[in-house]
Amino acid sequence: MARLRMGLIGGGPGSFIGAVHRIAAELDREIELVAGAFSSDAARSRQAGADYAIDPARAYPDVATMIAAETQRDDGLHFVTIATPNHHHFEAASAALDAGIAVMSDKPATATLAEAQQLAQIVGDSAAPYALTYTYSGYPMVREARARIAAGDMGRVRKVVVEYPQGWLSAAGADNKQAAWRLDPGKAGEGGCIADIGVHAFHLAEFVTGLRVDRLLADLGSVVEGRALDDDCQLLLRFDNGARGALLASQIAFGERNGLRIRVYGESGGMDWRQEAPNRLTWHRADGSTLLIERGDAGLSADAMAASRIPSGHPEGYLEAFANLYRDFARRVRGEPAPLLPGIADGVRGMALIHHAVAASRDGRGWFDFSV
Amino acid sequence: MARLRMGLIGGGPGSFIGAVHRIAAELDREIELVAGAFSSDAARSRQAGADYAIDPARAYPDVATMIAAETQRDDGLHFVTIATPNHHHFEAASAALDAGIAVMSDKPATATLAEAQQLAQIVGDSAAPYALTYTYSGYPMVREARARIAAGDMGRVRKVVVEYPQGWLSAAGADNKQAAWRLDPGKAGEGGCIADIGVHAFHLAEFVTGLRVDRLLADLGSVVEGRALDDDCQLLLRFDNGARGALLASQIAFGERNGLRIRVYGESGGMDWRQEAPNRLTWHRADGSTLLIERGDAGLSADAMAASRIPSGHPEGYLEAFANLYRDFARRVRGEPAPLLPGIADGVRGMALIHHAVAASRDGRGWFDFSV
Amino acid sequence: MARLRMGLIGGGPGSFIGAVHRIAAELDREIELVAGAFSSDAARSRQAGADYAIDPARAYPDVATMIAAETQRDDGLHFVTIATPNHHHFEAASAALDAGIAVMSDKPATATLAEAQQLAQIVGDSAAPYALTYTYSGYPMVREARARIAAGDMGRVRKVVVEYPQGWLSAAGADNKQAAWRLDPGKAGEGGCIADIGVHAFHLAEFVTGLRVDRLLADLGSVVEGRALDDDCQLLLRFDNGARGALLASQIAFGERNGLRIRVYGESGGMDWRQEAPNRLTWHRADGSTLLIERGDAGLSADAMAASRIPSGHPEGYLEAFANLYRDFARRVRGEPAPLLPGIADGVRGMALIHHAVAASRDGRGWFDFSV
Amino acid sequence: MARLRMGLIGGGPGSFIGAVHRIAAELDREIELVAGAFSSDAARSRQAGADYAIDPARAYPDVATMIAAETQRDDGLHFVTIATPNHHHFEAASAALDAGIAVMSDKPATATLAEAQQLAQIVGDSAAPYALTYTYSGYPMVREARARIAAGDMGRVRKVVVEYPQGWLSAAGADNKQAAWRLDPGKAGEGGCIADIGVHAFHLAEFVTGLRVDRLLADLGSVVEGRALDDDCQLLLRFDNGARGALLASQIAFGERNGLRIRVYGESGGMDWRQEAPNRLTWHRADGSTLLIERGDAGLSADAMAASRIPSGHPEGYLEAFANLYRDFARRVRGEPAPLLPGIADGVRGMALIHHAVAASRDGRGWFDFSV
Repeated sequence: MARLRMGLIGGGPGSFIGAVHRIAAELDREIELVAGAFSSDAARSRQAGADYAIDPARAYPDVATMIAAETQRDDGLHFVTIATPNHHHFEAASAALDAGIAVMSDKPATATLAEAQQLAQIVGDSAAPYALTYTYSGYPMVREARARIAAGDMGRVRKVVVEYPQGWLSAAGADNKQAAWRLDPGKAGEGGCIADIGVHAFHLAEFVTGLRVDRLLADLGSVVEGRALDDDCQLLLRFDNGARGALLASQIAFGERNGLRIRVYGESGGMDWRQEAPNRLTWHRADGSTLLIERGDAGLSADAMAASRIPSGHPEGYLEAFANLYRDFARRVRGEPAPLLPGIADGVRGMALIHHAVAASRDGRGWFDFSV
Repeated sequence: MARLRMGLIGGGPGSFIGAVHRIAAELDREIELVAGAFSSDAARSRQAGADYAIDPARAYPDVATMIAAETQRDDGLHFVTIATPNHHHFEAASAALDAGIAVMSDKPATATLAEAQQLAQIVGDSAAPYALTYTYSGYPMVREARARIAAGDMGRVRKVVVEYPQGWLSAAGADNKQAAWRLDPGKAGEGGCIADIGVHAFHLAEFVTGLRVDRLLADLGSVVEGRALDDDCQLLLRFDNGARGALLASQIAFGERNGLRIRVYGESGGMDWRQEAPNRLTWHRADGSTLLIERGDAGLSADAMAASRIPSGHPEGYLEAFANLYRDFARRVRGEPAPLLPGIADGVRGMALIHHAVAASRDGRGWFDFSV
Repeated sequence: MARLRMGLIGGGPGSFIGAVHRIAAELDREIELVAGAFSSDAARSRQAGADYAIDPARAYPDVATMIAAETQRDDGLHFVTIATPNHHHFEAASAALDAGIAVMSDKPATATLAEAQQLAQIVGDSAAPYALTYTYSGYPMVREARARIAAGDMGRVRKVVVEYPQGWLSAAGADNKQAAWRLDPGKAGEGGCIADIGVHAFHLAEFVTGLRVDRLLADLGSVVEGRALDDDCQLLLRFDNGARGALLASQIAFGERNGLRIRVYGESGGMDWRQEAPNRLTWHRADGSTLLIERGDAGLSADAMAASRIPSGHPEGYLEAFANLYRDFARRVRGEPAPLLPGIADGVRGMALIHHAVAASRDGRGWFDFSV
Repeated sequence: MARLRMGLIGGGPGSFIGAVHRIAAELDREIELVAGAFSSDAARSRQAGADYAIDPARAYPDVATMIAAETQRDDGLHFVTIATPNHHHFEAASAALDAGIAVMSDKPATATLAEAQQLAQIVGDSAAPYALTYTYSGYPMVREARARIAAGDMGRVRKVVVEYPQGWLSAAGADNKQAAWRLDPGKAGEGGCIADIGVHAFHLAEFVTGLRVDRLLADLGSVVEGRALDDDCQLLLRFDNGARGALLASQIAFGERNGLRIRVYGESGGMDWRQEAPNRLTWHRADGSTLLIERGDAGLSADAMAASRIPSGHPEGYLEAFANLYRDFARRVRGEPAPLLPGIADGVRGMALIHHAVAASRDGRGWFDFSV
């Protein structure tokens, strides 16, 4: 089977996420990075192309040029990955889709809810697939948890606690490139922490439980002086089955690295999963016993097994989870089903989260309906 | 030094907390249980007296009888411990204080905020000490955390996350004695989960940080059908230095045992402590490194060292933490300083938490000032 | 039920283990410390008596005086606890037993194997009970593991790994009192590390599995220069059912606190228990799943439940484990069965371990039969 | 920079390690799998070639054919990876080296010590590099530990405990392909467990400490009846600086997945690393404090930072560690230094371990000199 040809938008020199996309996409040999508009600076884009060892002719100065050129080639792109700051997402995604090129986009889907709604229209009208890298949904044990809850292993879900503490923006002088655009409303959009990591936590909660948030109460704050966007957020949630929830995300949780964690409690069971120890799932069973389930163990769900490459006890990590999204995406591009892959609907929900959370927090008066 | 003589109110047959009080009080040989009004049923009180191996003449049928008799003895009580359901706290405490007998009371201080305020007056007017068993503040590593934060080891506190998940009330038919009174507004007061464990989390947050909550937003719920009191609570907090916080407590977190945990993040450090692994404190330092601090290690604060009996690596637990409160209390009764011991002011704050949380949650409109 | 009267031999000022014995013995109110020969220095013994708040007349200058005086009293001692350096164990134990006073002795039983064998004769001839504080066998989850293995939950045991790393003797100038006698052959006996902690690991292995070591190979070393006794020991074992084993104990494992751990693997299951997290037992089941079992959970063995005082999630520790031995011992003294309590046979086995390990290591030629 | 062209020997359908090699080799885009002799069955080799999506013409029926064909091509192989059962290693490696093709070989280097010694000669005489996949030495935190010990952070090393428990061969009917050849002396060589995983533990101990074993005592056993090779091994070690050590490896440790762990204790520090949680290194410091060091933290050694691709808190795993070996190997093939990459000297030492351990265990009389 010939590999799908991938073009990368963003991910130029100094980018963490660009290299991650490349590794994850190529991990299973179903995809190959062949082109890119890696930077809005043409020289830097060329440099990135050289670093990635692609054909220099396919390191483009901008997205439009790339799309124009690639659509002319017999061996043109099957898809683009969008790994830019948020404010470029909409334009890049719609340009690609308009040209019939599939899109794998970084989250959040766009910079504003309105853009996301408009993009949903474009996706709906396009034959080309669109997917979103809610990376953490690619972890095998997250998929195991989802499968077990869907199978009724904990009865009705009653309570969800999802948290995402990070500490990397604790210092005022967040002077690196990663931080700068995330704190700039012109590039990140309305939300800071809520848009950067809150949406991950939100998607994870909906993905694992199969429920949808239908009300929320939000308390966003800018803890470090002088910030225009939130760096700490606390949300209370209600899901569509009545379950209660809390979502805590922070970028000023000093000393925390990437502490995404989800706990779900049901009528007859409970679960706990931590991103920093992703190969393990703790499961509380109806009989009162607690299971430690490891990726690769016998008896896991088909979803978890399909998302795992190596035996139990040999840790898999973030790149492998990311690669699972690309594997799903390759299937989707080939016209096969990939039901776990996040799409534009998830993207719109994420943008609605940001929008409602910012509004609710500003208002300060309590619960808001979560409409999309 | 002669031991202080203790009378126990409540703690009759089938009580968990009665035996805990007895063990904790006597652990350091500074206190001896000599009398009790263990049950409102005289026969059961006698039975309990026999179980505790005290003089049968000092197993009283009720509090009034005990106080009357003991104040007549040369070797009468130095203090009583109150280990009854909440609705008896006020009456028992005021009766003892009125008789000049010191009081060690279970939390929450009373059944209502008004009672607590009245009790504060009585305590203020009495020469006899009053203390409250916020047990978790007795753990050495909690005191270590407090000492470090007070010493400025993390700079200004910015964010507090305190949580207390339990699962033991997940089932509808919570038919044991422990559960029954806690779910009965006539005995427990206004709050269920918030009064039973929420106040522990609240006190811990204030104790460790040295800050005071001055605003809150509350979302209490009765998840299991038919309950008159909350079994799950989610609070958002503001402290008097502007720090943000969240308090999550639940009794329907299926599979959780006693998961009290506190994380505090400051400008230049962070910490993490879990009650179920209480001998360890995780500390994130300004230089980005993370320390695993064990009870008994060299270099701990005087407060932590004073609260520990055995060397590092030999685990101490809940009973030893509880005994630390009794050791402090014995000092207080003897007229010595015991600055870490919770007193009536903490008791009133706990009752205010319950009252405001219930009101705020009912109202549903957002933030309330936390006035006492 | 009247409390048993306890006399303490050793445990004077500065002793860690004396206070531990006192707390553990009295924890359940079945025993009371009333007398002692706390030090070979009469003034220090009096001082200790005052510290323990016992009748000054019962703080004796030596064991012989104590036994003579106490046997004359109507309210004389039921038993003595021996908490001295090893070289006093034999004399103290035999003196007490000869006087019809029961004995609770610190491990190892004596200073030499010959003494232990002689003591076994004395115990056999005496009506008074004798027990030995292999403290770690008092932990509820150790007893749970033992009960499960005895019930066949892992089939035939095939392999045992027991380890006991400590680091407190890493420094050459081990100048404190605790260290000094342990490194002095005149006080400790033939073995250093093997006698101090190796015997604990050895007893734990035999206790949990129900097997007996019948061959061993030993490699003892004195890592820190100038030591007359071993501070690191590595043993290979064979059990009487053919199972293989390893025992690693060290006092120069820099940074380790009290890392006793046992893992047992059978034909159809496996287990893992760590003293520093004693409330948890990990159990690998025949179906490939792994259980996290917590003290206090529903469904535990009667032995584990009887050894636990407080609910799941409220940690118990070393003192409570120690108290379980005293509870068993109180039963034994009262003529009731206490089948889990270590006795002189375990004491002789421990001394045989020390003796054979020292001899085997010196010889350096391989496997030795473990005869008692 | 053009990618290096890789040929895979072994790794056919059903192979775990073949896919691992492919992913690891290609992860950094410096290498591309272009050919293979994937199976001794020509049809299966073709099938594997199709699965790997390589040019069908380059899926060869055997090694000789591959080497003959590839050496004729302008775009022939830079190197081969040997991922066959052990008994094919020597022949494949020497054939490649003779043809001037570099070799990346699975461990153990060969099936016998004599072969390894002969291979060392061939490697010495060849211009083509040879390396060995002691995979675990590729983990960033293993390299961090090595760098710290080399820098003197724990003073002189005194004691090493390395263990490798697995449970996958607990059942008698180990009927899968992975198990079958490992238990067949004709394919695996003299050693079972010692050759399969013992050598990993051995290499890790020497790699991390920078020391060399110079004496050993071995106790190998075949626990499951009917096995011709060992499935459990226990070794005692002495290193060339006098340090003491133990190596425990087992494939009948029921329930264990891949529990490789190393602890090293020195005069002024100690460390602990576990393969199943590879992103963390525990470090005990001279001042008595304990650090939790995470991959990606600031202040790590250059070796650890170079071996890491993504930020702290985003777990890396086994595939990334493996890829680090390939990255080193690519450097070596390009003529650059790669000082951490295991080579034939490590291979010979591993074979000597197997040989001496088997002989020492059979002999049963104690300590053997470790000569190579």
